[in-house]
Amino acid sequence: MKRALPALRRPTAMLAGGLLALGIISVVSAQDGAEDLADIISAVDTAWLLIAGFLVFFMQAGFAMLTAGFVRSKETANILMKNMIDACVGGVSFWLVGWAFAYGVSDASNEFIGLGNFGLNQLAEAGYGHADWFFQFAFAAAAATIVAGALAGRTKYSAYLIYTVVVTGFIYPVVVHWGWDGTTWMGAFTDDIWLGNGYVDFAGSGIVHTVGGMAGLMGAIAVGARLGKYGPNGEVRAIPGHNISIATIGMFILWFGWYGFNPGSTLGLSGGGAALAASVAVTTTLAAGAGGITAMLWSRFRTGRYDTGLTINGILAGLVAITAGTATVDPWAAVVIGGIGALVMYYGVQMLDGVFRIDDPVGAVSVHAFAGIWGVIAVGLFSSQAGMEAAGYSNPQHYGLFLGGGGEQLLMQLIGIAAIVGWTAVTAGILFFAIKFTVGLRVSEEEEMRGLDLMEHGVDAYPDFGPSGSGIFGSSEIGGGGR
Amino acid sequence: MKRALPALRRPTAMLAGGLLALGIISVVSAQDGAEDLADIISAVDTAWLLIAGFLVFFMQAGFAMLTAGFVRSKETANILMKNMIDACVGGVSFWLVGWAFAYGVSDASNEFIGLGNFGLNQLAEAGYGHADWFFQFAFAAAAATIVAGALAGRTKYSAYLIYTVVVTGFIYPVVVHWGWDGTTWMGAFTDDIWLGNGYVDFAGSGIVHTVGGMAGLMGAIAVGARLGKYGPNGEVRAIPGHNISIATIGMFILWFGWYGFNPGSTLGLSGGGAALAASVAVTTTLAAGAGGITAMLWSRFRTGRYDTGLTINGILAGLVAITAGTATVDPWAAVVIGGIGALVMYYGVQMLDGVFRIDDPVGAVSVHAFAGIWGVIAVGLFSSQAGMEAAGYSNPQHYGLFLGGGGEQLLMQLIGIAAIVGWTAVTAGILFFAIKFTVGLRVSEEEEMRGLDLMEHGVDAYPDFGPSGSGIFGSSEIGGGGR
Amino acid sequence: MKRALPALRRPTAMLAGGLLALGIISVVSAQDGAEDLADIISAVDTAWLLIAGFLVFFMQAGFAMLTAGFVRSKETANILMKNMIDACVGGVSFWLVGWAFAYGVSDASNEFIGLGNFGLNQLAEAGYGHADWFFQFAFAAAAATIVAGALAGRTKYSAYLIYTVVVTGFIYPVVVHWGWDGTTWMGAFTDDIWLGNGYVDFAGSGIVHTVGGMAGLMGAIAVGARLGKYGPNGEVRAIPGHNISIATIGMFILWFGWYGFNPGSTLGLSGGGAALAASVAVTTTLAAGAGGITAMLWSRFRTGRYDTGLTINGILAGLVAITAGTATVDPWAAVVIGGIGALVMYYGVQMLDGVFRIDDPVGAVSVHAFAGIWGVIAVGLFSSQAGMEAAGYSNPQHYGLFLGGGGEQLLMQLIGIAAIVGWTAVTAGILFFAIKFTVGLRVSEEEEMRGLDLMEHGVDAYPDFGPSGSGIFGSSEIGGGGR
Repeated sequence: MKRALPALRRPTAMLAGGLLALGIISVVSAQDGAEDLADIISAVDTAWLLIAGFLVFFMQAGFAMLTAGFVRSKETANILMKNMIDACVGGVSFWLVGWAFAYGVSDASNEFIGLGNFGLNQLAEAGYGHADWFFQFAFAAAAATIVAGALAGRTKYSAYLIYTVVVTGFIYPVVVHWGWDGTTWMGAFTDDIWLGNGYVDFAGSGIVHTVGGMAGLMGAIAVGARLGKYGPNGEVRAIPGHNISIATIGMFILWFGWYGFNPGSTLGLSGGGAALAASVAVTTTLAAGAGGITAMLWSRFRTGRYDTGLTINGILAGLVAITAGTATVDPWAAVVIGGIGALVMYYGVQMLDGVFRIDDPVGAVSVHAFAGIWGVIAVGLFSSQAGMEAAGYSNPQHYGLFLGGGGEQLLMQLIGIAAIVGWTAVTAGILFFAIKFTVGLRVSEEEEMRGLDLMEHGVDAYPDFGPSGSGIFGSSEIGGGGR
Repeated sequence: MKRALPALRRPTAMLAGGLLALGIISVVSAQDGAEDLADIISAVDTAWLLIAGFLVFFMQAGFAMLTAGFVRSKETANILMKNMIDACVGGVSFWLVGWAFAYGVSDASNEFIGLGNFGLNQLAEAGYGHADWFFQFAFAAAAATIVAGALAGRTKYSAYLIYTVVVTGFIYPVVVHWGWDGTTWMGAFTDDIWLGNGYVDFAGSGIVHTVGGMAGLMGAIAVGARLGKYGPNGEVRAIPGHNISIATIGMFILWFGWYGFNPGSTLGLSGGGAALAASVAVTTTLAAGAGGITAMLWSRFRTGRYDTGLTINGILAGLVAITAGTATVDPWAAVVIGGIGALVMYYGVQMLDGVFRIDDPVGAVSVHAFAGIWGVIAVGLFSSQAGMEAAGYSNPQHYGLFLGGGGEQLLMQLIGIAAIVGWTAVTAGILFFAIKFTVGLRVSEEEEMRGLDLMEHGVDAYPDFGPSGSGIFGSSEIGGGGR
Repeated sequence: MKRALPALRRPTAMLAGGLLALGIISVVSAQDGAEDLADIISAVDTAWLLIAGFLVFFMQAGFAMLTAGFVRSKETANILMKNMIDACVGGVSFWLVGWAFAYGVSDASNEFIGLGNFGLNQLAEAGYGHADWFFQFAFAAAAATIVAGALAGRTKYSAYLIYTVVVTGFIYPVVVHWGWDGTTWMGAFTDDIWLGNGYVDFAGSGIVHTVGGMAGLMGAIAVGARLGKYGPNGEVRAIPGHNISIATIGMFILWFGWYGFNPGSTLGLSGGGAALAASVAVTTTLAAGAGGITAMLWSRFRTGRYDTGLTINGILAGLVAITAGTATVDPWAAVVIGGIGALVMYYGVQMLDGVFRIDDPVGAVSVHAFAGIWGVIAVGLFSSQAGMEAAGYSNPQHYGLFLGGGGEQLLMQLIGIAAIVGWTAVTAGILFFAIKFTVGLRVSEEEEMRGLDLMEHGVDAYPDFGPSGSGIFGSSEIGGGGR
């Protein structure tokens, strides 16, 4: 047992240390360092994807707190379980099949769906790396999580499990294939680009948020309103969220995570990616701010109160709305898009409740589907020529209608979002109604009244407080984990 | 509709993929790769600013949870709304005018205030990028948020809206112009440097925290103490915070965000920035630890209890105190500075309550203003010559008095912090008293007693629990967002 | 007072700006740029360590929320204080002595313990940078924090203070020295490697988690069960956690932080580090997901409920289990390892409660010690040859038994984990029993019944809610900080 040479002493996981040491040595000694330069450029681009992906993953915590805060305490553990299991199931199903349907490379891949690289087989041969998968997984999990809020308070957990597998494994990946794979009719980077620059959706107002929100809408229709939400004479009754504090931290975590979602969608830092990511961070920030301010002031104007829940959702609607055009619009336009996004959310909420009696406990449909659709359209209205060029679109002579760029891009945006809405409405509709008429979608009345936490999970989220702290627990055979 | 070549298949936002692909190709083929090297260096520096800025932005969540946890449940939604709107308004006002007053470049810019690049116009021509704006915005929002805590529980929301615009748009940017723009009398990088190295405040103990804390002090004076805080015979009554759990996560988020705040203030990684950032991470960690340990032990020594709230504030005071000298002091000095910072906070709290009867519900003035002032002074006492040199100051023969570096730097620190304190006290004082005697600063007694959440926002933060869960809600006309 | 040249105008902390400017200039002008290339490679590797370290540090917030959520409201402030002080004490003690015992370089360093670089003296001469310390500090603080949960609800705060100093300053650093310093018998990078590739524990299933969990086990044995946990006839009584919402955000923060813990353990990005980090992110994600799914389904199968606490702990057990082999196993194996990790946790919880009557309120022993041991063993079963090679181990002909790599690696894993378990059990056992028979380990019965928050900290974590909000507070002499 001799001692290693001091030169080899490096902390943790020496392996990497060894690689690094070799790398640095070769830098100094190599004649031109071209290999080392290529290595570090690739490493930096990969790290950007990873770090951005970490932030997008962290949005799971944001969705969990936001939706939990917006529901009643008696169904809190249930919605948290749904959020947790989205991340878990999303990982496994996006590994097994989701990636394959979205980006899979093989002769069988076609305009409709990717087929290849199931279980990440031969990923490198297809030109992708593990960081690509990780970043895309985080998006898939976000899309799936959006729907949980719309179904809160009355949906069977087993039904939700089925849904999550299908959305992360099939419904969402197909839309990604259309919009982002770069081989299909809608794509902005095919060699047969449709109108303008193809469908432009930089980070996914449509591809991620509208898909999640529309699926939530279909689910909310299928499962029906919570008991007591609408009175016998059609009046709308508020069912206040149980914890504004955690809803607020949820919103802030989502905003924080959006800096991975949007700037990270440059997919790299080299070759202009960093400067583009910086301008994306600016438009993201301004749209969020404008959304929050608009919702706050509008709620005050309409109701006399600075409404907390609407302000939270206004910020989120601003973020959702800017996500498609974040790389191609100017800062002033981001303010406009975010502000209008908040109004779209506001009137979406009114319409669902007041006109259609569709119960969406957290406003997920309005925030993600409606503001997402608006965001996709806004690309065709507000994108600047310089923005389209800086973001690398190949036909920058087509840009926002309001800036003189003609109507082609707008038309393409409408086609694209129509396809997304149609696909999601049909597939999610079939899915939820199929569940409804087989295993069942909704819990019993008694279970809903007593709360899903007790009946589905045998737990009280806050046993020490309030009316739900009825002391009926305490007999579980399982210890540990807060027992 | 042909399919793209497999080589072009890249996930999400192909544009960047295309740029990257080109970049990598050129790396391999270029003779010397000088352009690619310059590109990746610039990209890495930009990414550092962005990532650090994301962390600083996330401090908004920390401030929200910290201050919410430290106030009563009946005013929780109100303080959360203030925190949310700080981030929103801060973004828009720092875009419109804040940056222009801080760093704006034009012939009209002068020693007192920057003028130029309003709305980020011609930012690139001025030598800045979007990442610079984003990083600075996050600081401005932090400065504005600090004040919310000192005004909690009795301040009108509309008054707060006015304040936030002014602090992020004017009061704070002017101080930044003095201290960091590099063109003015106080700056450390002008070509006519005052005493020592000019005012040294690496990441803003004075420029950010003292500004926020002093504005909070003036606001607390103007608005007066909460009802019942001081008894008829002058006795001080504790009004305990309603939720230690969220206050704790708030503290941890702030500490986490501080690793963007301090290490990020290297503004880049190349040319020695990374090593400097690493040493900054070390001093930041040690000062936080020393602050927490000191406050914990001191509270035990003085009161017989290991006080939770004081430990939280001790950690934060340690962080605030090290922020100015984080790049120029040795680890042992960081421990001393952080520990003393906690004592400054402790006796600051005592003094405000016991001597002046100024009600600061969360200790914001003591943590941010008092410990911030101490931090600025500590630079003149503890900075090492090697530290001044490593951090790039041009006259490193002037350094900490206690280390034999003479008194010039200390004197300059005193001049600088006096200017900051004076400016903020005067402008924020005028602002708050102007609001008080026009639109009004304070809510009615009834509103304060029943809680700001109900009257200003029509909401109960925790409707399912405790005495505030009185069931009087449920009639809002607005659904969604937790309704 | 002349104005600086516009070229020198840079925001915040001009110093770094100056360095950067110089760096960029030299890039353009230098003939071969070799120095600049070496600089940026080193900067990127350093930044990776820092960013990953920030994420690992943030796990403190996760542990705080997780353990607080899993205990009763009357002992919430106490467990939060323990978590806070872990981070604080951990920083100071790991600076003073912890690093020295783990990685210290001097002639006195030996196979058992490092000796050198106390207080970070002459760190650079030893070949390390501040980022190395910071990253390792975050791990040490994590190890110390794990134990808090197992001791919750009945342990004296002063006893805990002693423990924390010893674990971060001595018990844990010695294990690090054995496993990661690269100079000792167990190490994978010595020049006299034991069986296979030495003890392989990429990010610390054994070195961090088993140490923390085993220390928790010894502490739980020494302090005894909470009052009423086990009935007079030996029946196990559940004591439900008070707040599932914060437990859930705690879990998500831990999962988020794990992306620093595992991918960050490449210690750099250059020379293949980035690609390795990406594959680590994939296996980490899949193991977490598999752990969560397994625990959820298993709890349903065994108890009829989808158990929230067990799902949380299942995810964490999956993460703990993959941590050793995250760089050397394939994705499918990560799923298997994570799933089995959840079962190990499940039956660990059953065994501690049902067989040994050892009270671990949050399941820390089962999650960290038992799943950690499993993770270490799994390296010897499931590591692929390609994985061992990609991760840089020098004898990749030895790999997982189940994949045909022979039994040497498995045997070495067993030897390594036996040494870790033995060392921790003995030293932590001595420590806790020494505390027990001197200053005392356990609070009085009255204190335990009334709650540690009141007696140790004079605070009610939630004074506005529920039974603990008894209004007996309000007389503290200290204002500020939520008073």
